[in-house]
Amino acid sequence: MADYVPPLPDMQFVLRELVELTSLAQLPGCEEATPALVDAILDEAGKFARGVLAPLNCSGDRQGARWDSGAVRTADGWREAYGQFVAAGWNALSCPMEHGGQGLPRLISTLVEEMWNGANVAFALCPMLTRGAIEAIDLHGSATLKQIYLPRLVSGEWTGTMNLTEPQAGSDLAAIRARAEPRADGSYRISGQKTFITYGEHDLADNIVHLVLARTPDAPEGVKGISLFVVPKFLVNADGSIGSRNDVRCISIERKLGIHASPTCVMAFGDGGGAVGYLIGEENQGLAYMFIMMNTARFSIGLEGLGLAEGAYQQALAYARQRVQGTAAGTRSGAKVAILRHPDIRRMLLLMKSQSEAMRALACVVAASMDVAQRHPEPETRRRHQAFVDLMIPVVKGWNTETANEIASLGVQIHGGMGYIEEAGAAQFLRDARITTIYEGTTGIQAIDLVGRKVARDQGRTIRAVLDEIRAIERQLRGHDEPALGAIAHALGAGVSALAQAVDFIVTTFGTDVRAALAGAVPFLKLFGTVAGGWQMARAALAAQRRIDQGDSDTAFLRAKIASAHFYADHLLTQAPGLARIVCAGAPAVLQFTDDQFIGAARQ
Amino acid sequence: MADYVPPLPDMQFVLRELVELTSLAQLPGCEEATPALVDAILDEAGKFARGVLAPLNCSGDRQGARWDSGAVRTADGWREAYGQFVAAGWNALSCPMEHGGQGLPRLISTLVEEMWNGANVAFALCPMLTRGAIEAIDLHGSATLKQIYLPRLVSGEWTGTMNLTEPQAGSDLAAIRARAEPRADGSYRISGQKTFITYGEHDLADNIVHLVLARTPDAPEGVKGISLFVVPKFLVNADGSIGSRNDVRCISIERKLGIHASPTCVMAFGDGGGAVGYLIGEENQGLAYMFIMMNTARFSIGLEGLGLAEGAYQQALAYARQRVQGTAAGTRSGAKVAILRHPDIRRMLLLMKSQSEAMRALACVVAASMDVAQRHPEPETRRRHQAFVDLMIPVVKGWNTETANEIASLGVQIHGGMGYIEEAGAAQFLRDARITTIYEGTTGIQAIDLVGRKVARDQGRTIRAVLDEIRAIERQLRGHDEPALGAIAHALGAGVSALAQAVDFIVTTFGTDVRAALAGAVPFLKLFGTVAGGWQMARAALAAQRRIDQGDSDTAFLRAKIASAHFYADHLLTQAPGLARIVCAGAPAVLQFTDDQFIGAARQ
Repeated sequence: MADYVPPLPDMQFVLRELVELTSLAQLPGCEEATPALVDAILDEAGKFARGVLAPLNCSGDRQGARWDSGAVRTADGWREAYGQFVAAGWNALSCPMEHGGQGLPRLISTLVEEMWNGANVAFALCPMLTRGAIEAIDLHGSATLKQIYLPRLVSGEWTGTMNLTEPQAGSDLAAIRARAEPRADGSYRISGQKTFITYGEHDLADNIVHLVLARTPDAPEGVKGISLFVVPKFLVNADGSIGSRNDVRCISIERKLGIHASPTCVMAFGDGGGAVGYLIGEENQGLAYMFIMMNTARFSIGLEGLGLAEGAYQQALAYARQRVQGTAAGTRSGAKVAILRHPDIRRMLLLMKSQSEAMRALACVVAASMDVAQRHPEPETRRRHQAFVDLMIPVVKGWNTETANEIASLGVQIHGGMGYIEEAGAAQFLRDARITTIYEGTTGIQAIDLVGRKVARDQGRTIRAVLDEIRAIERQLRGHDEPALGAIAHALGAGVSALAQAVDFIVTTFGTDVRAALAGAVPFLKLFGTVAGGWQMARAALAAQRRIDQGDSDTAFLRAKIASAHFYADHLLTQAPGLARIVCAGAPAVLQFTDDQFIGAARQ
Repeated sequence: MADYVPPLPDMQFVLRELVELTSLAQLPGCEEATPALVDAILDEAGKFARGVLAPLNCSGDRQGARWDSGAVRTADGWREAYGQFVAAGWNALSCPMEHGGQGLPRLISTLVEEMWNGANVAFALCPMLTRGAIEAIDLHGSATLKQIYLPRLVSGEWTGTMNLTEPQAGSDLAAIRARAEPRADGSYRISGQKTFITYGEHDLADNIVHLVLARTPDAPEGVKGISLFVVPKFLVNADGSIGSRNDVRCISIERKLGIHASPTCVMAFGDGGGAVGYLIGEENQGLAYMFIMMNTARFSIGLEGLGLAEGAYQQALAYARQRVQGTAAGTRSGAKVAILRHPDIRRMLLLMKSQSEAMRALACVVAASMDVAQRHPEPETRRRHQAFVDLMIPVVKGWNTETANEIASLGVQIHGGMGYIEEAGAAQFLRDARITTIYEGTTGIQAIDLVGRKVARDQGRTIRAVLDEIRAIERQLRGHDEPALGAIAHALGAGVSALAQAVDFIVTTFGTDVRAALAGAVPFLKLFGTVAGGWQMARAALAAQRRIDQGDSDTAFLRAKIASAHFYADHLLTQAPGLARIVCAGAPAVLQFTDDQFIGAARQ
């Protein structure tokens, strides 16, 4: 396993050149997020990720979480690491100040989360779910619920979960069957089974606060009859102390491809007569509340993709630098060289590096808009940024994670035979990344959300505003003499044209032939992600060139950034027209294929 | 785990429409390979794959091979299955008749191998390596070696291995250090350590015949000083009975991402003074001999890709048919439907299905050429077919396996959350497939072989003959009214033009700027594979249309074939221009990136 090195120079570049860190501190509530404080936080988070979390990544994977008679024991060292995490205040970083949090902007927590994920994604999942629970209770919970649960969730003393999935209800939450019976005291009794519950049971904290979707007896069918409940593992006494055990238990954990150290639990509610639950907000509004949490969670899964991609890249680069094999290309004699010297290894490393940079830049731009959308004094500015955020969340989730899988697989490939050996560490990135395109909504679900709610619903208005911004960057690039910038301009121009064509197709087709629009939804998401990533890399190249022109001394970093953007343009943006062709012309071949044509051949 | 169903209808279609099975039986030595016999063999092999091998695939993965004090125990049931495999004569299928084999054409064994791989790739590896050992001894071994070893390797009573890799010598075999000291009796004493030795030790057979690359004391440096030896686990007495234990042992086995049931061994030769070895052919010719075996082995790994892709497809289709989730696209009410009904699931299944069919067709066309190249009476015909085979082997190896990885990952994706759970079986295909782009030469190594030895060396003559054949198919397609055939013609035309452009670039550039040619070698391989697969799918569509026009009653299968080819054209062939752009214009961005630009950012 290579050491995890927090990618602070690139983070600093993004914060200074691609988002307006200084104007962030002018937003109400962000006054403390000065560049100096942000630097200090990133520095400390990097030390924690590198020094505490990364060393447990491989051993946690190997040992895994273990189930025994309803209890779940985390891997050796995890309880201590979680204790340090909480003691250092990391859990409270982006949490609301009125409940003990530090209230830092999403932009900052985005980069901090990247580091947790790059160092140890199985660990990072636990506080990620706690944040989701905090958000749901904070937005819609009663004053009592907030008072009882938020301070201890914010501190990390207790952790949170999201209990959505049931065996028959995965992507289709309308099929949820868990029941909630109201009691005279205002509480409910929850019963039913939930599956795929991340950190549903563990030994890291004293209590676990489950957020559970269930149906009240008279609830309408489908998504309009789902309510959201708080169901603690241990009931909480009036004085805030831990009371008796609630009627919820973990009946098994899954044997998974990856994230072995993160227990994925089957949870049984109410086997002993009903778990005590407390309604959040109003009955039958549960899905709406859950969607707010899910948007945050989806963005966070996109950051898992980013963190894993960066980690896999570092691992592969370290191997490529030390592994000596063969002579320089085109020679048979001469000294043996590190495989980093071989052109195809460089190509693969550049695919990993340039896309990781693009993902980071895109995630930060979206995170900065989240902060503006939440805090800016002008409603129209808030609305504009929120529309951009809503548009981009399925892209950050879907494209980052699909790309992370490709990157992790390239990392294995660069290792050659060693990539297949678990001890080397490359394979774990692939195994861990493989869940990210699935949970919190598969890439297919993200793509349906993107083409339906985010592109077609407003007739393409929001995405076309993005296209205009990309075209403005293209024009700026064309004004430069630097050949790399010209190459980027060319590829970006072709990419944005391809995307515009695909947007026209989606907007025109969604209302008239929804199946044709959906047949190209995932290729559309990949196309948008590719072009949006290229847009950010183009902005990065422009900014780097500007700093070089201004005489900045850090030319090594800045020239590498331009070169990385150039690679991205020539190897990734150039694939945009092919993707647009699938979106615009690929549907008939998908939709004309009949069920019998699939099934006939399988009948024997 | 879904049942494995041998894809016999598609195999029959390929044998009848895409290769000339009837003229195969006219080749010298192939007289017995009549269509009736071939049908019977495929039928029986299908039963064995489905009934004996497939049921051990998941349990073998879970249990794995176990090392204990130098011995390796295979998973429960494997020894019995291997016994049945040998008893039924499957090991001898394509082996030379003079040593007890059945001498069946490569075309037939290609489809049989696909079934072993589709059912249980970890099992199939063992006889695959035995075939390699048989081939090397048969081609270059002395009469004595042949007489002692071949009958029992052919029967499967003993198994074979390939001992190439050493810790410092992976892709770079020039770095091999294992030593071979000649003795007065003509034998050698072998010493050194070999790693990544598949089935280097196991309990399936009474003896293991290692083929080992090593250096004699006066051997020249590099690849010209490597010799090939037979080193049996147990020495063989003059009467053919098993003698004393040779000085070779398995000192550990690897913990791997996949193929858990196939032991990957670290082998120590000569720790007790020297393992007895017997030279094959002449000293210092070992690499040339090994390359002959390696070509066969590389083709076989391509068949692993094919088998795994088909298996993953069947698994995903079975899940998509039974998993009910959501309502039909564009509706919110109405009955819940199987996910097979959702457009994006269909798109993914068609990616899996159409590419598996393309791989199968391409592999069979190459295998048929192997038979002609080996057996045809006319030297010019043999030469022409051998050139085609040499050109295509890195493509079948590299493109099939890269594609198999994508297909196996799509299989996981179709399963949603269940795809991540090991019990479901989808993840195993992904884990097992991940080695196929690595062993027997990584995709990068295949691509170097392709652009250097196979395309540039003859100035593109062989590949341009293929381009002409593809253009002839395109012209035939244009003569049809059927819209699907027109769509295929259009995409194939664009694909072949893109490939022709890339060939021009490689031929022009390889001699003048080898690094620029190599920077695009893997994209070139993927481009060639994509277009070659599209060529075969286009041929299949033409043949299917011809049979429909002739009044064939099996229109369901034939129309599905045309529809599958149509999908391939619109979703895969359309990506060819983008790949060609990387080959022709992507090198500068790869090569201008400096070592320092990689390393600088990692220094902290």
